[in-house]
Amino acid sequence: MSYTAPTKDILFVIRELAGLTKIASLPGYEDATPDTVEAVIGEAAKFHGEVIAPLNVAGDKQPSSWHDGEVRTTPGFAEAFRQFGEGGWQGIVHPVEFGGQGLPKLVGTPCMEMMNAANLSFALCAMLTDGAIEALLTAGSDELKQRFLPRLIAGEWTGTMNLTEPQAGSDLALLRTRAEPQADGSYKVFGTKIFITYGDHDMADNIVHLVLARTPGAPEGVKGISLFVVPKFLVNDDGSLGARNDVQCVSIEHKLGIKASPTAVLQFGDHGGAIGYLVGEENRGLEYMFVMMNAARFGVGVQGIAISDRAYQQAVAYAKDRVQSRPVDGSSREAVAIIHHPDVRRMLTEMRALTEGARALSLVAAAYSDLAHHAPDAYTRAQFKSAYEFLVPVIKGWSTEMSLDVTSLGVQVHGGMGFIEETGAAQHFRDARILPIYEGTTAIQANDLVGRKTVRDGGLAARAILAEVDQTIDALRVCAGSGADAACSAMFVQLGYARMALGRAVDFVLENAAKEPNAVFGASVAYLKLAGIVLTGWQMARALVVATHKRSEDEAFYAAKIATAEFFAKQILPRATALEAAITGASGEDGFLNLDESRF
Amino acid sequence: MSYTAPTKDILFVIRELAGLTKIASLPGYEDATPDTVEAVIGEAAKFHGEVIAPLNVAGDKQPSSWHDGEVRTTPGFAEAFRQFGEGGWQGIVHPVEFGGQGLPKLVGTPCMEMMNAANLSFALCAMLTDGAIEALLTAGSDELKQRFLPRLIAGEWTGTMNLTEPQAGSDLALLRTRAEPQADGSYKVFGTKIFITYGDHDMADNIVHLVLARTPGAPEGVKGISLFVVPKFLVNDDGSLGARNDVQCVSIEHKLGIKASPTAVLQFGDHGGAIGYLVGEENRGLEYMFVMMNAARFGVGVQGIAISDRAYQQAVAYAKDRVQSRPVDGSSREAVAIIHHPDVRRMLTEMRALTEGARALSLVAAAYSDLAHHAPDAYTRAQFKSAYEFLVPVIKGWSTEMSLDVTSLGVQVHGGMGFIEETGAAQHFRDARILPIYEGTTAIQANDLVGRKTVRDGGLAARAILAEVDQTIDALRVCAGSGADAACSAMFVQLGYARMALGRAVDFVLENAAKEPNAVFGASVAYLKLAGIVLTGWQMARALVVATHKRSEDEAFYAAKIATAEFFAKQILPRATALEAAITGASGEDGFLNLDESRF
Repeated sequence: MSYTAPTKDILFVIRELAGLTKIASLPGYEDATPDTVEAVIGEAAKFHGEVIAPLNVAGDKQPSSWHDGEVRTTPGFAEAFRQFGEGGWQGIVHPVEFGGQGLPKLVGTPCMEMMNAANLSFALCAMLTDGAIEALLTAGSDELKQRFLPRLIAGEWTGTMNLTEPQAGSDLALLRTRAEPQADGSYKVFGTKIFITYGDHDMADNIVHLVLARTPGAPEGVKGISLFVVPKFLVNDDGSLGARNDVQCVSIEHKLGIKASPTAVLQFGDHGGAIGYLVGEENRGLEYMFVMMNAARFGVGVQGIAISDRAYQQAVAYAKDRVQSRPVDGSSREAVAIIHHPDVRRMLTEMRALTEGARALSLVAAAYSDLAHHAPDAYTRAQFKSAYEFLVPVIKGWSTEMSLDVTSLGVQVHGGMGFIEETGAAQHFRDARILPIYEGTTAIQANDLVGRKTVRDGGLAARAILAEVDQTIDALRVCAGSGADAACSAMFVQLGYARMALGRAVDFVLENAAKEPNAVFGASVAYLKLAGIVLTGWQMARALVVATHKRSEDEAFYAAKIATAEFFAKQILPRATALEAAITGASGEDGFLNLDESRF
Repeated sequence: MSYTAPTKDILFVIRELAGLTKIASLPGYEDATPDTVEAVIGEAAKFHGEVIAPLNVAGDKQPSSWHDGEVRTTPGFAEAFRQFGEGGWQGIVHPVEFGGQGLPKLVGTPCMEMMNAANLSFALCAMLTDGAIEALLTAGSDELKQRFLPRLIAGEWTGTMNLTEPQAGSDLALLRTRAEPQADGSYKVFGTKIFITYGDHDMADNIVHLVLARTPGAPEGVKGISLFVVPKFLVNDDGSLGARNDVQCVSIEHKLGIKASPTAVLQFGDHGGAIGYLVGEENRGLEYMFVMMNAARFGVGVQGIAISDRAYQQAVAYAKDRVQSRPVDGSSREAVAIIHHPDVRRMLTEMRALTEGARALSLVAAAYSDLAHHAPDAYTRAQFKSAYEFLVPVIKGWSTEMSLDVTSLGVQVHGGMGFIEETGAAQHFRDARILPIYEGTTAIQANDLVGRKTVRDGGLAARAILAEVDQTIDALRVCAGSGADAACSAMFVQLGYARMALGRAVDFVLENAAKEPNAVFGASVAYLKLAGIVLTGWQMARALVVATHKRSEDEAFYAAKIATAEFFAKQILPRATALEAAITGASGEDGFLNLDESRF
């Protein structure tokens, strides 16, 4: 149940598909030389494989526990987090000005994948801390930044995101937590927040809660929400820790998975009010929180890829070891390792193909984000910003839904042993199940993809990406035309069909979103999945073209890439037409709402 | 988290799709009058809903536990099992001669569905007992039958199936347990069996283990396996219990789900040999065990339907209760119950459509089984036997794979609450995960469907069922032709496409199974899923035709059936073409085996 980071595939994607050279040439990223990047990836692989991954099973068996308002994490987590901070891993993409390493998201993303593959529960603490850092960088005053960022970036303190309340989950308009202004400019915060990841723990000296709340007289709904920093311990002007703030962890949840990660109910203000500091301006909290959420959504997508790879690695190890049954083609009279059975091979290749496709898309998107922030001219920045924002819900929705299938296949490869907890395959299956839910369910992502990302700009971003896919199809035509290349031919045909299906789906969404909102939003998850298949397939196609050209340079690696891409083309891409049919089929029946509620 | 048996849908399917009148007219089934059947279904619904269902959560929270060689089941299980036996539920389909009720499988199957929906863990004990009864009925001597059957059928004793050993899971050729003949005609059994469901427990006075073992000098492989009865307590000639036999439960497994059901490691013969009695003839054990296994495989398919319905019911209840967000079509300025959101409605309808389709197919298959056993003429019996045997792997494979999706959607409908164990949705998701594994993994079912059920008879059974589908398509043409019936039109088109895809897949399998075994067996799960979609869709189509004609008789029920069938047509059946592409796409690349093992 060890974890070996897929550094070779990561470096391949970073260099060949995501354009590391181009990213490293951007202003501010000059330090991201090929050598540095390779060294960082190698060190991350080592650290997460050796220090973090071995704690994964322990986290499941001895989850975080709550005692008298305090959470104790799994033995070993606190020490590992200390090493994580000291190694500079929390600060990898954050500004040098506050102690970070200032590396591109293209370098930070694979590190995030490795951390999550090593230990999803552990990684959540760092991911939430990233979110808090992003919010403060976006909207925090200089004073707040100076007070909190260096310690957060050093991994000495951690961060949380406090959105959900019992009555307000996906719908933040229903938020009730309130913040009352005080004479000294601070606020007193009162309310209950639930589902707060790492809302309390013993892995750092302080916890910096980012909390959504309403100020007196604020507008109703989402336009009256403000964002506050509420530290667990107040921070003195000299940076030392002061009094305990009035925020209490009243319980943690008993969950299906990610058990080491404490999911807290936090009570603010039961003893006079929790002292909080406004971030940015009043009533703009949701806007700031979206900055965090977009980063977090991308991160959760990466979690889906990470847990898929971990499940894949474990399934491969078992399939190579477990001997059972003679081969169906009669090639052996003895029972063989089950990896030689066609259906096991099919499952493993599917796990691998889905994971590699999603990984490539996530890293390409990370490069887009870097370009969106650092490209010298505004037009390029805007283009990549729009492309990145289109991809975020796809990566979050697709990679996490995919991870349900991949971790389930991981159990299946193990047969009966997969159902026994000691084997470890079931933990990945359980852990993954939260991913299509938190940071916005798949439906929320899909509605975002339909509404904000496709309809709002009249399909501009969608069509720009389709044009990119078309360029790859042209390259496949050349590659397939060269003769006997079965993989390129198959990919040319299947990506072509799938891309046309997505093109028609984009048109359908644009034409009908206003006319038939229930139909279009009822089919939005199918639309997201169609985009996911086509765009991850597109990346596999790009990888295939490179691999076909470079095959002689590294036969083992590129032959595997070609075979995996061929599988993706023949076995996965054909699903696109079924998804298109589901999307267009939703029209005319009021989006499945024609059956009266009483009849369910 | 209560369970209300879907008696209305069950009675609809039994009467309108499975032909209860015809079954009740078969010799031996004269007692299965419409009134009796309705009464039995109603009583079963009451008993399982009121007595068995309330124990489901307790079984998960306080699973079976092992202490010094004895298993203690969840508090309440033993008393419930006593009531189950006294109510005659164990004997529902078993011969009157041994105390059973002798009712058709068409009546027993919905009772099995209800029991499993109420409590999967509890139901397993009765299902395994059914298997032991079947094996004894098939091959047991009169003496063994007289000694064991009445107590098993009365629910006083329970049965187990002992196949798996640590090195022999799917591959029974590797079996090592041995049985040495004794002077008195009995045998002494030595060996270790794992994954023995209800291998020990405190719910009955005795446990009747059916054990596969090898006799001295038996041929190697599966042709040298014999079947033995090894009771936990020996049975005296007067029927009273004698000495404790030499079979020990040395541990039980810590599992992902179905935690109340003890999964035992049994050690036979550590203290001189466990006394066993040969069932039937030596070396024919696998053949007899297949009788049990076929019944058990069908039963596991029904478990998939049952857990899907339970998850559906729970998701509907939550979706009607949970208020969150305003509707996307602007029809309300207030937040509404989430069942009004199109994607939630889509998920619920998908859960419902898949479950209803699979239920209908299972009950039609049950009727086929009744006809295969009780039709007066041999030709009819043979025809229905072949049709039933074709359907068994489809029902087992499809209904259980489907249950993974349905229970996962059940979690998703709950959002964050779905991940919290207290909610109960996660238990269904965990419980369901064993279903595509035990009694033969999905690949085993798929290989059976390809090899024994499609290729061996040259496609006869497959094509006979396709001809039945064609008759339904004809009926849909009439129904669609009558005018504005959108549901019939959609089903006519989509079932037509899907049936053609399955037809081509049957041809592909027949043509290539010998030529390209790795390709065909690598695509066998896709073939099984294609058959599952088409045949459950076919049953939804049959239901649609009836509902269209009878709509005015019960508007609420039939309108729901029509809407559900339309959803199946538009949203689910289009997946058939993707599966066909996956099947034919497997050809020519050696069934995914072209990538060297070392590259995984």
